[in-house]
Amino acid sequence: MLRATRRLACLAALGAGLGLAACASAPVSAQETVRSERGAFRVSEFATGLDRPWGAAFLPDGRMLVTERPGRLRLVARDGKLSPAIPGVPEVVAAGQGGLLDVALAPDFATTRQIYVCLAGAAEGGVLTRLATATLSPDMSRLEGTRTLLDAAPAQSSGRNHYGCRIAFGRDGKLFLSTGERFTNKPRAQDLADLGGKVLRLERDGRPAGGNPFLNRPGARPEIFTYGHRNPQGLAVNPATRSLIEIEFGAKGGDEVNLLRAGANYGWPLVSHGTDYDGSPIGTGRASAPGIEEPLRHWTPAISPSGGNFYAGGAFPAWQGNLFLAALNPPGLMRLTMDGDRVVAEERMLWGRTRFRQVLPGPDGLLYILTDETRGRILRLEPAP
Amino acid sequence: MLRATRRLACLAALGAGLGLAACASAPVSAQETVRSERGAFRVSEFATGLDRPWGAAFLPDGRMLVTERPGRLRLVARDGKLSPAIPGVPEVVAAGQGGLLDVALAPDFATTRQIYVCLAGAAEGGVLTRLATATLSPDMSRLEGTRTLLDAAPAQSSGRNHYGCRIAFGRDGKLFLSTGERFTNKPRAQDLADLGGKVLRLERDGRPAGGNPFLNRPGARPEIFTYGHRNPQGLAVNPATRSLIEIEFGAKGGDEVNLLRAGANYGWPLVSHGTDYDGSPIGTGRASAPGIEEPLRHWTPAISPSGGNFYAGGAFPAWQGNLFLAALNPPGLMRLTMDGDRVVAEERMLWGRTRFRQVLPGPDGLLYILTDETRGRILRLEPAP
Repeated sequence: MLRATRRLACLAALGAGLGLAACASAPVSAQETVRSERGAFRVSEFATGLDRPWGAAFLPDGRMLVTERPGRLRLVARDGKLSPAIPGVPEVVAAGQGGLLDVALAPDFATTRQIYVCLAGAAEGGVLTRLATATLSPDMSRLEGTRTLLDAAPAQSSGRNHYGCRIAFGRDGKLFLSTGERFTNKPRAQDLADLGGKVLRLERDGRPAGGNPFLNRPGARPEIFTYGHRNPQGLAVNPATRSLIEIEFGAKGGDEVNLLRAGANYGWPLVSHGTDYDGSPIGTGRASAPGIEEPLRHWTPAISPSGGNFYAGGAFPAWQGNLFLAALNPPGLMRLTMDGDRVVAEERMLWGRTRFRQVLPGPDGLLYILTDETRGRILRLEPAP
Repeated sequence: MLRATRRLACLAALGAGLGLAACASAPVSAQETVRSERGAFRVSEFATGLDRPWGAAFLPDGRMLVTERPGRLRLVARDGKLSPAIPGVPEVVAAGQGGLLDVALAPDFATTRQIYVCLAGAAEGGVLTRLATATLSPDMSRLEGTRTLLDAAPAQSSGRNHYGCRIAFGRDGKLFLSTGERFTNKPRAQDLADLGGKVLRLERDGRPAGGNPFLNRPGARPEIFTYGHRNPQGLAVNPATRSLIEIEFGAKGGDEVNLLRAGANYGWPLVSHGTDYDGSPIGTGRASAPGIEEPLRHWTPAISPSGGNFYAGGAFPAWQGNLFLAALNPPGLMRLTMDGDRVVAEERMLWGRTRFRQVLPGPDGLLYILTDETRGRILRLEPAP
């Protein structure tokens, strides 16, 4: 009861525009019960002892692979117990926002045991977003045959931020990879010869996917599916429409959820609904422009959405088809109600508490959240009894 | 002879990479004879006493209209004598690079007496490139019915540079107008809702021309013909191919001559063959990019080409079909040999001497050059006897 009161006080402080300081002392904790718009849920700590968990994927047997940004991949048992670090992970540059970032299973993992990882990797000239693949050994103790599939060139020597690095599979089995613009003043995201600030669409072996929009444009990288992205750390397929949804960080405001259309330009750094960190305008100073896709939804002030997935499980019928975003700052969970590919409502949950890096539904229908903490956790949301 | 010797010494100094200092004391002067690659010509002073002449157009009777940047329009008689300032000129903002800039005759001037001027004009929010029209009175003493046809919005309160402002008529009678990006850090030239950094294609009354490439793109300005231009001060139709050629200033290098294609992007400020004035890269730092038109020719170091026209007169048969550029810095005249729409050779003439703003052939087949001087002149090139 004391805990619930403190949470309400925190929300009241937020509502009164008092900022987050009042909430900083109330991180999300185990066994907390939360009343939300569509019913109550309980938060439990499913796993602990992870250093900056970033990406996760459930195996067919209900266990989970999870990355730690410093460069470790672990198996999480169904009871939340962590395996030792799995050897065979590619070398990463664990600095700034870089390291071992996302992990995804091949669609035919059950027979091939193939996984994909995205990471910040060293290359000639600096660091870049890298896609690699490997096979998980039958006893799940090690990665075998690890190899790079794609480097999002050019490498950049300055800065250690904005790698993008989320992996998703389309319904046609193609691999989508988001890449960041590497926090440079260069308009890399607008340059079709540059793989930064893009969403790429690839065959399973890293080659450009057939049917990609710029296959026949001289000089353009054939891997590109969409461009004009800043730092896209969320990619998810809408199960209701099969559309690919992308989630990206703006600067000071202008965070976006986008519906991706082949060949489309999402505007960075020409237009933004936000401003630069010092308040100066981005690019044209305009929020939208002809020929540039409007986001489905955007946030100013920022929420720093770092990952997201659709909920399609059975445990929370009222959340069916909702898009959940993990927010870093203000920290929390954003629940978006969809109508087809439109966003029609939002609810902020566990807001102002703990930085969340990724959220994904489990095969048990519960919702799992990776916290962006050095003593990081995997939280689990289940219906309150 | 002394003069010719000094000129040769100057050219030798240039050739030896000694810079322009040695030439600064040798402006182009009257009655000078110059040996060029395709024969010798003589330079004479056709008119004097103009303050920063910028644009000029020959009347059917062989007289010439010429603008002075501070805001005057004058008639130049066939003997070079200047009329008083012609009243009825629109009000201009004569600051920085702005003022009364180009003048052009309507294609049916002989019957309508209609002229067009381009200027820097005051508008709500600042200054912008403005197209106006008027009728020249039968006695050529005044402009009548002066009115604005188009404002290249938005107006900008900061800076007084980069208006573009050249007018040309296509073979189909449509009016082309170049507009500058106003020397701002905003990527105005890439914004299709913004009329800066564009070449516009207009009906005679200033409305968007039929068939324009962005007529059906929501939010795009329907006047736009091409985009991604920095400061385009030259527009000319190639008489051999009917193509429209555009000439623009880069920053530190990257000056361009472009072949305009409807709807095409010429890249500023995403790509440039030059750099910023402090040597830092422009945009992507790349000279070219997929989806962006390559210039026909570009110059680094810069030549600052401010105007240009094709030569199609009879007095210099060896120059037939050549494209002449007026260069400000290094000052001089650039003669480009064309093969269709390709530039195959260049010759620098009167180089390192006097800043030239515009060059145009007269109905007598001679070549006329406006000098960018406060005690400005119109020079005339004729074959040496």
